[in-house]
Amino acid sequence: MAIIKGPFPRNEYLRRLLLVKSEMARREVDALVVSDQHNITYLSGYTARSAYVPQALVVTAKEDEPVFILRRMDAPAAMHQCFMGREKIIAYPELLIAHQDKDGYDAVIDYLQAAGLAQGSIGLEQYDLSTLTVEKFRRRLEGTRIVDCTKAVTWIRLVKSELEIEVMREAAAISDAAIARAAEVIRPGTREADAFAEIASVLIRGVNGKPGTRLEAIAICATPRTGTCHIPWSEDIFREGSQVNIELAGSRHGYCAALMRTYSIGAPSGRLRRVHDVQVEGLDAALSAVRPGATCSDVANAFYLTIEKRGLSKESRCGYAQGIGWTEPTASLRDGDVTVLQPNMTFHLMLGNWIDEEFGYVISETFRVTTTGVDVLTSAPRQIFQVW
Amino acid sequence: MAIIKGPFPRNEYLRRLLLVKSEMARREVDALVVSDQHNITYLSGYTARSAYVPQALVVTAKEDEPVFILRRMDAPAAMHQCFMGREKIIAYPELLIAHQDKDGYDAVIDYLQAAGLAQGSIGLEQYDLSTLTVEKFRRRLEGTRIVDCTKAVTWIRLVKSELEIEVMREAAAISDAAIARAAEVIRPGTREADAFAEIASVLIRGVNGKPGTRLEAIAICATPRTGTCHIPWSEDIFREGSQVNIELAGSRHGYCAALMRTYSIGAPSGRLRRVHDVQVEGLDAALSAVRPGATCSDVANAFYLTIEKRGLSKESRCGYAQGIGWTEPTASLRDGDVTVLQPNMTFHLMLGNWIDEEFGYVISETFRVTTTGVDVLTSAPRQIFQVW
Repeated sequence: MAIIKGPFPRNEYLRRLLLVKSEMARREVDALVVSDQHNITYLSGYTARSAYVPQALVVTAKEDEPVFILRRMDAPAAMHQCFMGREKIIAYPELLIAHQDKDGYDAVIDYLQAAGLAQGSIGLEQYDLSTLTVEKFRRRLEGTRIVDCTKAVTWIRLVKSELEIEVMREAAAISDAAIARAAEVIRPGTREADAFAEIASVLIRGVNGKPGTRLEAIAICATPRTGTCHIPWSEDIFREGSQVNIELAGSRHGYCAALMRTYSIGAPSGRLRRVHDVQVEGLDAALSAVRPGATCSDVANAFYLTIEKRGLSKESRCGYAQGIGWTEPTASLRDGDVTVLQPNMTFHLMLGNWIDEEFGYVISETFRVTTTGVDVLTSAPRQIFQVW
Repeated sequence: MAIIKGPFPRNEYLRRLLLVKSEMARREVDALVVSDQHNITYLSGYTARSAYVPQALVVTAKEDEPVFILRRMDAPAAMHQCFMGREKIIAYPELLIAHQDKDGYDAVIDYLQAAGLAQGSIGLEQYDLSTLTVEKFRRRLEGTRIVDCTKAVTWIRLVKSELEIEVMREAAAISDAAIARAAEVIRPGTREADAFAEIASVLIRGVNGKPGTRLEAIAICATPRTGTCHIPWSEDIFREGSQVNIELAGSRHGYCAALMRTYSIGAPSGRLRRVHDVQVEGLDAALSAVRPGATCSDVANAFYLTIEKRGLSKESRCGYAQGIGWTEPTASLRDGDVTVLQPNMTFHLMLGNWIDEEFGYVISETFRVTTTGVDVLTSAPRQIFQVW
């Protein structure tokens, strides 16, 4: 069987696992149960869409490679995608799907017991798991020391390797192309759905011979919905004078690089132009504040202070860590987040500003922190895209 | 502001809410906190993609309309989409996003307290919520009687109204068209990504003047990956002799109608033809078993027995309830599921059969139960699509 593995060499996964094992040692955890789907991708290369049923990696200090316990139906995908040897893929029977009393986590617990790991201490991503699952672990592993490791792996993901940066750069190039394509297809009289199909096509086909490998959710918020941010495209057509806010992300091997731009059919209104000018000034200020040693709060406040001087405000945060699966739920670019920037942390500087119910404006960039400042991965022109 | 509401009239939502309130009365619950995103869609019409942060409907016996508590940024989308009056949309501040100690569920609890609902009994979709959230409700509502209502609304969703069936029929027509398009674009030498872009285009543009309103995840599993079911499309090209398994779903206003077909570039192998013949015979048997009063188990066993007589077996279940958000996690078409079929229950009869790591075959239909038997909503030919 011709196996197509993920984009990273084995050594890259072992490097990531070493960071995780070091954190496990610090927390005195012998076995870590990784159930978050994006953390599973990070530590194994698996990107198939099976997270709607239970599945988990088990990382131990002793073994180089983790064990991946998942549904029988999905085990072949794990063999195709994961860097580990096939003996590390453990399929649980289909009988556990939609079973009245049991589920796949019973198979995970069975494995922990059979492998002698229940005698040690076990880490769980506890606060992200459902109550049902945590109760099951506590009940079936009575006597085992269970250690909360919520977001332990997620925080490690925050600093990317050079190889990860390269993949995000590929995703960013796809985002740039899709933003450019939007300017070609947004026209008065065109259905939002038809424009979206063209934009999606770029995100799927990719650029430079590298296809997108997943289609992330795209927001196309056109007049009268520019005050919304996560609504699906509508059954409407675009009209003369309409404004269109787009948020999208190219994706390569699970890694996103998000990008937002605003479009105007015909000349932008005075209000839109003023907001754009102020926001771009804020964007420049935020990017100028990015350097190792600065905090997330510093970057956000550079933006907030700049636009507030010009009479604008933004209630929501200025962005978040980005990598696998769009938003990484760790560091935020917001006032009071004292996470210290380090080289190769990556963020979506998300400056969407939904000013009132009927009017919003969007602009954003995906950037990485360098050893001296900032490297913006996305490169679409910072303009209102005016179309006719 | 021109408001574009969902596809259903107010009375349809009130009808659904009446069913929920009746269940609340049975469980002696005064206020039900509905946090499952698909249940929120069901009871309000909201389909924007904001479920990655806390949000909840609060349904009470006394009020006709539920209250929807969600992030400030997403409140305008709720005003656009929800059937309720705008005063029922309660926006919580952006400060609660990525806050160290609080989150949006604190706003839900604040509301329950301010509305005097904490004195009564409160229903939670408890076993689907994270541990963090359930602990928060218990801690902040000490003294309140909390009643587990996990999947209470989800089970009510199982039986559709005529209006819901109509929307699923529209989704099914989109699925049929996308399956037909796949036969036009799967060609040797074509990149999987390029074929996917064409298929996605149909799912987005829709048919009969009705666009898709969301792009669901599509599985394109081509040789050598036909033994997998949820893997993303690869960076490969299709080749002479390749087999391609496709699972997709048109989507209208959140409602899916899934469909699977198998393609062969060049003449299908003898093995593939034999499996196809047996599976179609099993499909016919399963559909013949559908009638009010039969159980899910009866339908599944009609399939299993038919193919087992012909020397084939299938380990996984034969399908699941379908409606909002692809899989409804309630009734399954599997041996031992004694859910009794009723008119207008809808299912994805999912006969994908991943026989070994290197070989799988897929066929499926989306059907509804009628007063006398079955109505298959999807209508693509039940054939191996042979292309050159």
